[in-house]
Amino acid sequence: MKKDLVNTIEQDIRFSDVDSLGIVWHGNYVQYFEDGREAFGKQHDLRYLDFYKHGYVVPIVSIQCDYKQILRYGDRVIIETTYKPCEPAKINFTYRLLNAATGSLVVTGSTTQVFLSKDGFTLQLSNPDFFLDWKLKHEII
Amino acid sequence: MKKDLVNTIEQDIRFSDVDSLGIVWHGNYVQYFEDGREAFGKQHDLRYLDFYKHGYVVPIVSIQCDYKQILRYGDRVIIETTYKPCEPAKINFTYRLLNAATGSLVVTGSTTQVFLSKDGFTLQLSNPDFFLDWKLKHEII
Amino acid sequence: MKKDLVNTIEQDIRFSDVDSLGIVWHGNYVQYFEDGREAFGKQHDLRYLDFYKHGYVVPIVSIQCDYKQILRYGDRVIIETTYKPCEPAKINFTYRLLNAATGSLVVTGSTTQVFLSKDGFTLQLSNPDFFLDWKLKHEII
Amino acid sequence: MKKDLVNTIEQDIRFSDVDSLGIVWHGNYVQYFEDGREAFGKQHDLRYLDFYKHGYVVPIVSIQCDYKQILRYGDRVIIETTYKPCEPAKINFTYRLLNAATGSLVVTGSTTQVFLSKDGFTLQLSNPDFFLDWKLKHEII
Repeated sequence: MKKDLVNTIEQDIRFSDVDSLGIVWHGNYVQYFEDGREAFGKQHDLRYLDFYKHGYVVPIVSIQCDYKQILRYGDRVIIETTYKPCEPAKINFTYRLLNAATGSLVVTGSTTQVFLSKDGFTLQLSNPDFFLDWKLKHEII
Repeated sequence: MKKDLVNTIEQDIRFSDVDSLGIVWHGNYVQYFEDGREAFGKQHDLRYLDFYKHGYVVPIVSIQCDYKQILRYGDRVIIETTYKPCEPAKINFTYRLLNAATGSLVVTGSTTQVFLSKDGFTLQLSNPDFFLDWKLKHEII
Repeated sequence: MKKDLVNTIEQDIRFSDVDSLGIVWHGNYVQYFEDGREAFGKQHDLRYLDFYKHGYVVPIVSIQCDYKQILRYGDRVIIETTYKPCEPAKINFTYRLLNAATGSLVVTGSTTQVFLSKDGFTLQLSNPDFFLDWKLKHEII
Repeated sequence: MKKDLVNTIEQDIRFSDVDSLGIVWHGNYVQYFEDGREAFGKQHDLRYLDFYKHGYVVPIVSIQCDYKQILRYGDRVIIETTYKPCEPAKINFTYRLLNAATGSLVVTGSTTQVFLSKDGFTLQLSNPDFFLDWKLKHEII
């Protein structure tokens, strides 16, 4: 049985995240997704440097982002990052960003990452052993 | 008959666009899309400040980005921005980013924007008149 | 007698903060200074939005940054922000950034801000009353 | 006799360069300085990748920036980058940023870079040969 692993963080909107309309510039949500992934990796032992240590880099190959509401300077954002299990040699996350004060949904999104060899950037067609171990450890089969 | 309007620009990859792997950080392509939209607006008289002058802002409500290849510092990127006509009160663009040296496709993507009133950020359910005029002028019906 | 007010925060280096040499891109330290100022404002009741509420904006008019060592992805940075009292209608901060693991000094810097009226951006030649009150409250005379 | 080498470029202010006050965020001028240095390197054969090819990286060790006026979205900026000769193994640039429409001075600044070996990041105490050759070629003695 597959289950979802989740990480949740909360952080302030930075002054420099906001555009001339006083709202978070849409491109900065890509950074918030990355903040979420990094916090996920810390909590669930899947850090970027862990991949690197095992000889892999895991670039983003696809990103999707849907904007439902706005955030302003002075707001706080909740970033909810969920690992979505899949069979192929890919890493899928979904994201839900919420206004911390109101609880309303601000942005949803998803990313897909692949495994490349650290040297040569060769695409890995099967899951690396350490990643299969990580899945097993977290009962993602 | 609907036809597509296109803008094409070419620019250098900035040193600061590149991450520790020596490749453009995925989030920066969102900026390249915006660079493309701004150049499109200049060429085809649909500038951000034109919207503003008519009382509207046009925030991104959806973005999709697919990464096929990498770009490095020292490369030049071609940004091809295409307006995709649609009936509803929305603005759709698609993007093709190419490596200027090799011509190979690096990134594809799309964005959707909506019309909000400048004051109050109220969603506009029908196309503003000036935008219908713009469509007519460019034979987008 | 003048005394210094200080704020200290500690945060992770983001993946996107690092350039192709694997070190924090020099321009990102300007953001760390801002992170420090915002944390200072939270701790000592001198938030950006407090200025705004009283009718002022406080843009940076001068910044200085000296780089002594490097920081890498995976490091944590300590940001020490110190308010430096002065008579004129200015706000001076100094910054010391330290590698959290080693305690060694990474970057020093300073910023100067002035008071502009929120509407019209007119330079204020004397300290606003609310700011004099803030100084008094913190025994900065 | 020492003479100054200069590069001048002109570019649009990007929408994302501007903060919630509608003016260029102070940190983005550090990027404009880098844009200036890169254009200088292109014009005068002193590209970042030339340093790299010879075995060096040239990180910024000091930056100073003074803000005299503001720039807004829709403005164009002139970036004037001047190489300031010096005896030690350092690279000094000064910058003058002008509003392209009015010619008025917006920002002045300076940067200092040093030579590190590409591998090991060891500080070079004397000027690399290829850099002395570059100086000679441009009659900077």
